[in-house]
Amino acid sequence: MEQFDGYTYVEGGVCAAKGFRANGLNCGLNPDKEKKDLGMVVSDRVCSTAAVYTTNKVKGAPILVTKRHLKATGGKARAVIVNSKNANTCNADGEAKAERMAELAAAELGIPTDEVVVASTGVIGHILPIEPIEKHIRELTEGLSYDGNAKAAQAIMTTDTVQKEVAVSFRLGDVTCTLGGMAKGSGMIHPNMATTLNFVTTDVAISTELIQKALSEVTKITYNCLSIDGDTSTNDMVCVMANGMAGNTEIRTEQEDYACFKQALYIVMMNMTRMLAKDGEGATKLIECTVSEAGDLDTAITVAKSVIRSPLFKCAVFGEDANWGRILCAVGYAEAEFDIHKVDVDLASAKGVLPVCRSGSGKDFSEEFAKEVLSEDEIQVRISLHEGDVSATAWGCDLTYDYVRINGDYRS
Amino acid sequence: MEQFDGYTYVEGGVCAAKGFRANGLNCGLNPDKEKKDLGMVVSDRVCSTAAVYTTNKVKGAPILVTKRHLKATGGKARAVIVNSKNANTCNADGEAKAERMAELAAAELGIPTDEVVVASTGVIGHILPIEPIEKHIRELTEGLSYDGNAKAAQAIMTTDTVQKEVAVSFRLGDVTCTLGGMAKGSGMIHPNMATTLNFVTTDVAISTELIQKALSEVTKITYNCLSIDGDTSTNDMVCVMANGMAGNTEIRTEQEDYACFKQALYIVMMNMTRMLAKDGEGATKLIECTVSEAGDLDTAITVAKSVIRSPLFKCAVFGEDANWGRILCAVGYAEAEFDIHKVDVDLASAKGVLPVCRSGSGKDFSEEFAKEVLSEDEIQVRISLHEGDVSATAWGCDLTYDYVRINGDYRS
Repeated sequence: MEQFDGYTYVEGGVCAAKGFRANGLNCGLNPDKEKKDLGMVVSDRVCSTAAVYTTNKVKGAPILVTKRHLKATGGKARAVIVNSKNANTCNADGEAKAERMAELAAAELGIPTDEVVVASTGVIGHILPIEPIEKHIRELTEGLSYDGNAKAAQAIMTTDTVQKEVAVSFRLGDVTCTLGGMAKGSGMIHPNMATTLNFVTTDVAISTELIQKALSEVTKITYNCLSIDGDTSTNDMVCVMANGMAGNTEIRTEQEDYACFKQALYIVMMNMTRMLAKDGEGATKLIECTVSEAGDLDTAITVAKSVIRSPLFKCAVFGEDANWGRILCAVGYAEAEFDIHKVDVDLASAKGVLPVCRSGSGKDFSEEFAKEVLSEDEIQVRISLHEGDVSATAWGCDLTYDYVRINGDYRS
Repeated sequence: MEQFDGYTYVEGGVCAAKGFRANGLNCGLNPDKEKKDLGMVVSDRVCSTAAVYTTNKVKGAPILVTKRHLKATGGKARAVIVNSKNANTCNADGEAKAERMAELAAAELGIPTDEVVVASTGVIGHILPIEPIEKHIRELTEGLSYDGNAKAAQAIMTTDTVQKEVAVSFRLGDVTCTLGGMAKGSGMIHPNMATTLNFVTTDVAISTELIQKALSEVTKITYNCLSIDGDTSTNDMVCVMANGMAGNTEIRTEQEDYACFKQALYIVMMNMTRMLAKDGEGATKLIECTVSEAGDLDTAITVAKSVIRSPLFKCAVFGEDANWGRILCAVGYAEAEFDIHKVDVDLASAKGVLPVCRSGSGKDFSEEFAKEVLSEDEIQVRISLHEGDVSATAWGCDLTYDYVRINGDYRS
């Protein structure tokens, strides 16, 4: 993991910050009893809560319910209930079922229903059976613990092959604060927003307005720069909850403390974004594309995302083939303004740096060294536009036989 | 093939219309001597010529040269020279080489260099060796014949598995006219424009202005509604040449004759588009998505293309899995305005019609019948937006193991 001055990686995921308990179990939505399918995260105190959602017109019922709840409370929440295996989307009874999940959680926790965030992930268009959740809600809440983060992280996995958690601690004045998160997502991942389910918790005290602002800004340069397959999901959500239990003076202005907090959020979200890319469905390699010397941020992001998304380039990376023409092709069809004749491209990995293109034309290189560079499981594409001084990174993965296998028969 | 009143399918591809000769041979760009890599089409008389090109910022050198030629002549041309195996793109000497190809053809044919259209397809960023072309140009021109269309169609194939030719004859007044074409393309195919190399010839007499207008309009609803993999190529071109040898009164206004001509162009281009989709790299199934009852044409096209492009849905079709939620997901992220709660979706094939979604929500269906419908090799997705009366169709194919295999090591 990349190191950042003043920030220390710690264990604990969504339970790393003070006052957050979590749990996860199998309630029977997933017939495989070994696989958890129902999770919960609860704060000891009510939290300033921000969320960003999918831009898909088809929005999962849980998204609609969560939006309504956060609006009703003015951005306050105490708990998250989430299931995998069924997206509860495109069902006539979807909202009633999502609302019922919130009610079940609220009743057990003794909190208002509006303070519950609801999320679902899995197959679209299958009726969500509510009985398994009703039957296991007590077990779920009774099992909540301050080190239950791994169980919750497992409960949101679908085709994910690894659980995804990151947390950092840092100082605000003389107070130690912590911010951690968990994420799921493997296929149907593409900008824009938010491309997966992500829950971040922190003990920082911060106003609802500023937590939403920080989340929106960090999402733009992390999750929204991630593409596994170009499909924008219907159920994507990133939710950040801040309970203030660290004891810092509440952040109410965009001063130094806000910048420190935002950097912590960036570190956690950027690392989760990388994990999501690396665990893309069927992926064998992480592709990280950095566009530098762009005239503005949107251009840098657009070009980086275009490369990450190209199926042809993704296949070439899988085949460890330095087919840089496909990179330049994807740079060329990015919808942004720049001079293609100034573009330089390098491929890089732990094995070294391979310049493949200068000023828009090919550069001779050793195929042997190219193979070596591409044999690594983390591949970097470095593109310079020579137009300005702005950079952005996008994350993706290779396109493999296994992506086709996994998605050729996902429902069964 | 779909039948159209007043139009008869005929043999002959680019040689079907009067006065067009063609040829193709292996000049050595392709080390496999069985595979043709150099082709030519020549008209007995100078032609009104229209072309549309890739929108990629990276444009193959042949595109730049062809544009210059057609500008210099005011839209007149007599010959096409085209090679496969090497795209002559992103090379410092690209334009000089493309110009040299035109000069070689012009010298042998005894016509001005500006009357030659040049095209290349294949790997990007490899220097094009000109010697094989210089060495074989005489053999190529001496072998031109009025039934050489198949040889030319073969010479433009790259990863194509079948040659692609269509032609129709029709009446303008009491004159019989013919319009035919050939196409190549299998991967790196995605709107916008033109997604492949396509050459259309006709003996109709028509002004340069109107042939360009017809081509632009028909391209929008045929080639630009095709997506194999979402990668917009650098070398795409559709070129139509009309030599007037049928003897009709030249079409100079948008009257009935113009409509008849445009319909012929639509039939040939639509059929080639279908062929391209069906022969998409690694494809086992054609996917044809028709969006009807849209409020306007752009909405219908945008939604149809969004579905055709979804990797998740493409994998589901490969797996013969009626995962309609992925269709609705792709409808939902299409950048167009409509009410998702009014959307109906049917899947269909020669085996029957399967309604899967009504008013944005799932509909129960027999999985057994679904499997049967999806077992066919031409699958239709029928979407109704219930907003207006406009329809559009987009064409694509499934995403398979073979797509990954073919593109994992294309250069070797």
